[in-house]
Amino acid sequence: MSCWVKYGEECDFPIENLPYGVFHLKGEDAREARVGVAIGDSVLDLKVLANNGFFKDILPFNVFAEGALNSFMKLGRPTWLKVRKVLQDVLAKENPILRDNQELLKKALFPLSAITNLLPAKIGDYTDFYSSREHAENMGRIFRPDAEPLLPNWLWLPVGYHGRASSVVVSGQDIRRPNGQVKAPTAATPSFARCNKLDMELEVGMFVGPGNDLGSPISIDKAEEHIFGIVLMNDWSARDIQAWEYVPLGPFGGKNFGTTISPWVVTLEALEPFRIEGPKQEPAPLSYLQPKSPFAFDIHLEVHLATEASPAPSQITQSNFKYLYWSMAQQLVHHTITGCNMVPGDLLGSGTISGPDKQLGSLMELSWNGKNPLVLPSGEKRTFFEDGDTCIIKGWAQGNNYRIGFGDCSGKVLPANKI
Amino acid sequence: MSCWVKYGEECDFPIENLPYGVFHLKGEDAREARVGVAIGDSVLDLKVLANNGFFKDILPFNVFAEGALNSFMKLGRPTWLKVRKVLQDVLAKENPILRDNQELLKKALFPLSAITNLLPAKIGDYTDFYSSREHAENMGRIFRPDAEPLLPNWLWLPVGYHGRASSVVVSGQDIRRPNGQVKAPTAATPSFARCNKLDMELEVGMFVGPGNDLGSPISIDKAEEHIFGIVLMNDWSARDIQAWEYVPLGPFGGKNFGTTISPWVVTLEALEPFRIEGPKQEPAPLSYLQPKSPFAFDIHLEVHLATEASPAPSQITQSNFKYLYWSMAQQLVHHTITGCNMVPGDLLGSGTISGPDKQLGSLMELSWNGKNPLVLPSGEKRTFFEDGDTCIIKGWAQGNNYRIGFGDCSGKVLPANKI
Ligand SMILES: [Ca+2]
Ligand SMILES: [Ca+2]
Ligand SMILES: [Mg+2]
Ligand SMILES: [Mg+2]
Ligand code: NI
Repeated sequence: MSCWVKYGEECDFPIENLPYGVFHLKGEDAREARVGVAIGDSVLDLKVLANNGFFKDILPFNVFAEGALNSFMKLGRPTWLKVRKVLQDVLAKENPILRDNQELLKKALFPLSAITNLLPAKIGDYTDFYSSREHAENMGRIFRPDAEPLLPNWLWLPVGYHGRASSVVVSGQDIRRPNGQVKAPTAATPSFARCNKLDMELEVGMFVGPGNDLGSPISIDKAEEHIFGIVLMNDWSARDIQAWEYVPLGPFGGKNFGTTISPWVVTLEALEPFRIEGPKQEPAPLSYLQPKSPFAFDIHLEVHLATEASPAPSQITQSNFKYLYWSMAQQLVHHTITGCNMVPGDLLGSGTISGPDKQLGSLMELSWNGKNPLVLPSGEKRTFFEDGDTCIIKGWAQGNNYRIGFGDCSGKVLPANKI
Repeated sequence: MSCWVKYGEECDFPIENLPYGVFHLKGEDAREARVGVAIGDSVLDLKVLANNGFFKDILPFNVFAEGALNSFMKLGRPTWLKVRKVLQDVLAKENPILRDNQELLKKALFPLSAITNLLPAKIGDYTDFYSSREHAENMGRIFRPDAEPLLPNWLWLPVGYHGRASSVVVSGQDIRRPNGQVKAPTAATPSFARCNKLDMELEVGMFVGPGNDLGSPISIDKAEEHIFGIVLMNDWSARDIQAWEYVPLGPFGGKNFGTTISPWVVTLEALEPFRIEGPKQEPAPLSYLQPKSPFAFDIHLEVHLATEASPAPSQITQSNFKYLYWSMAQQLVHHTITGCNMVPGDLLGSGTISGPDKQLGSLMELSWNGKNPLVLPSGEKRTFFEDGDTCIIKGWAQGNNYRIGFGDCSGKVLPANKI
């Protein structure tokens, strides 16, 4: 596929991708936010395209004039496919309709450098799963070295917990190191302290489309109809706070101080060529979780770290979305199986994605709970994040001469508030 | 205080109360929803009052014309107090301004029997705590009979978990019994089955007011500024599903199929006369959790059960909000201590409220995990809910010749979907 917008083979946003985001121009008020797609180094303003009749008979109203993708997400895949077709037509190299309309181009195409990205959706609820077998096993080995690394339910259901939606932020927003209650194993009583084990979690987040009514679960053969697309996600974690608080009701303050996502939602359509079989599931899942078709995706993932002393980012780990044991479809189905309703714009995190061959998706695993510091190219060492560190997740699916990329999922650590 | 609207001493909604809710008239579309206060057996339409200039110079715009209380909750206590004063003036026995304006009365005062209540707010995030010491101890004794009933962190912090906001429903909405994954302790593998241990949890929910920015915790001396008011809450729970899924990340599908709240939000102002000292906290909380003033409330709570065979509700348990070990202020502060941002309309559940003298807030405790069935006045027995059962929570603070009541928090159990 050829496009009249120019870009190279390593560009995240070729015409095969067309991920959706919410933006306004720098200098504009946030109330001006609208929907765009990333193409090359630019963003195409879909509000303007809709106002100019490009989606006539496809949209019930100008869903792209809103500062969130929820209304578009609600419309479902038949509409998503029609819009994608229009966009690929309009951007096709040979099509002059927008390419040669200088007046419209000026109003509809902006360099990415000129815009501010906002959260792509109003996230009603955010849920975080724990679906990488290798990550779960590593955590088990670190915390319960003498026991079976996997807990009894792990191979039977996608373990997950409800997260905090209000603190999901878009790439680029700084994250303040938390203070909180911690207790060293050797201490008699807990204390209030600065978090000393600030970690990342390398995850992928899925955005829900139409969703379901309360009491009416989504079946496994319908799951894909309800998945709009995915983003990269850093589920920042305060390991010392989490360790003290999480029994018996799960992570709380150790997780709710910030979750960073990449701004562009990559659709299942764009990822379709990269769909593959996931890990073999043994024991076989119960029938409500048995997939009818493969639903893993070959997406290369990397984490880079920039420090204050050494601002050029260096890679600290890599992984692949294909290692996820429980698929997004299975996660979604299990989430609704007791009747829970999904709403357009809900966000479901994959859980930290580690892999079978030293792919490690957290500093907890990379430093083995602080025992083995990472040595950066600058010579600096890290067990967990230091103030001023910037953690950048990147990811892409590699096609022939093109990439389906995600853009950066980046956040910088600010010093904790004074105690 | 005397009011020109007539009601008896046991009415939930005297002039001292004035709880806020969202409603439309039966037959109207949900888009007509607006804010009202309950008074006697009626509702006063605040949208109409605002349009008629009653809140001039108090409100930035007609926040009562919205189908949710979020905008009003955001305004903060100084505004809430001004509005309350206007309402108590307007409703005072001797004030003719509305009392004698038949034309306006016809547009602004409706019998409760003529309205449909909606959720009082758009709930961005819902969190559930676990703050009754007696409930936590009972659960410990049931599930870990040979160990200390309280886990090590319980006396040091208000343990809680993020819940599911999308499935919070208003009183009166039926709840479908869930199906889900369960595993009997003696079974080799789990199975997919109808929930056999459907339970209630007797709770109180608090609605958040203005809230805080991400990274800027709310301090204990400011906590009250951020608490708008409270409702009764039934945190429906599928105990068999929860038991299998909840280790290590907490309750999930066993909790996210429905949470019922009462429709009228009772303000802290109305509850002020019933503020008392809470349970003594020993060990003393860390300083960030040390209260500056008493923050327990003497609110009598009852649970009634109606069955299909015996539709007249009978009381199955009672408790009191004053037994809560960790106060709402402490819960709110702890929730934000790592930096989590609170948003107007967020809902925080107290946790099941049991007490020191056989006050038991769940069927799990009342039947001691099914070992001791309750015998209802009709002779029917219950360990957990049967299909067709209706669970009704009631509550009030008892003043001299008046009550600050909540109205019913009621939900009927529908049969599970066919497997
Ligand atoms: Ca996570
Ligand atoms: Ca609860
Ligand atoms: Mg997080
Ligand atoms: Mg619930
Ligand atoms: Ni939420």
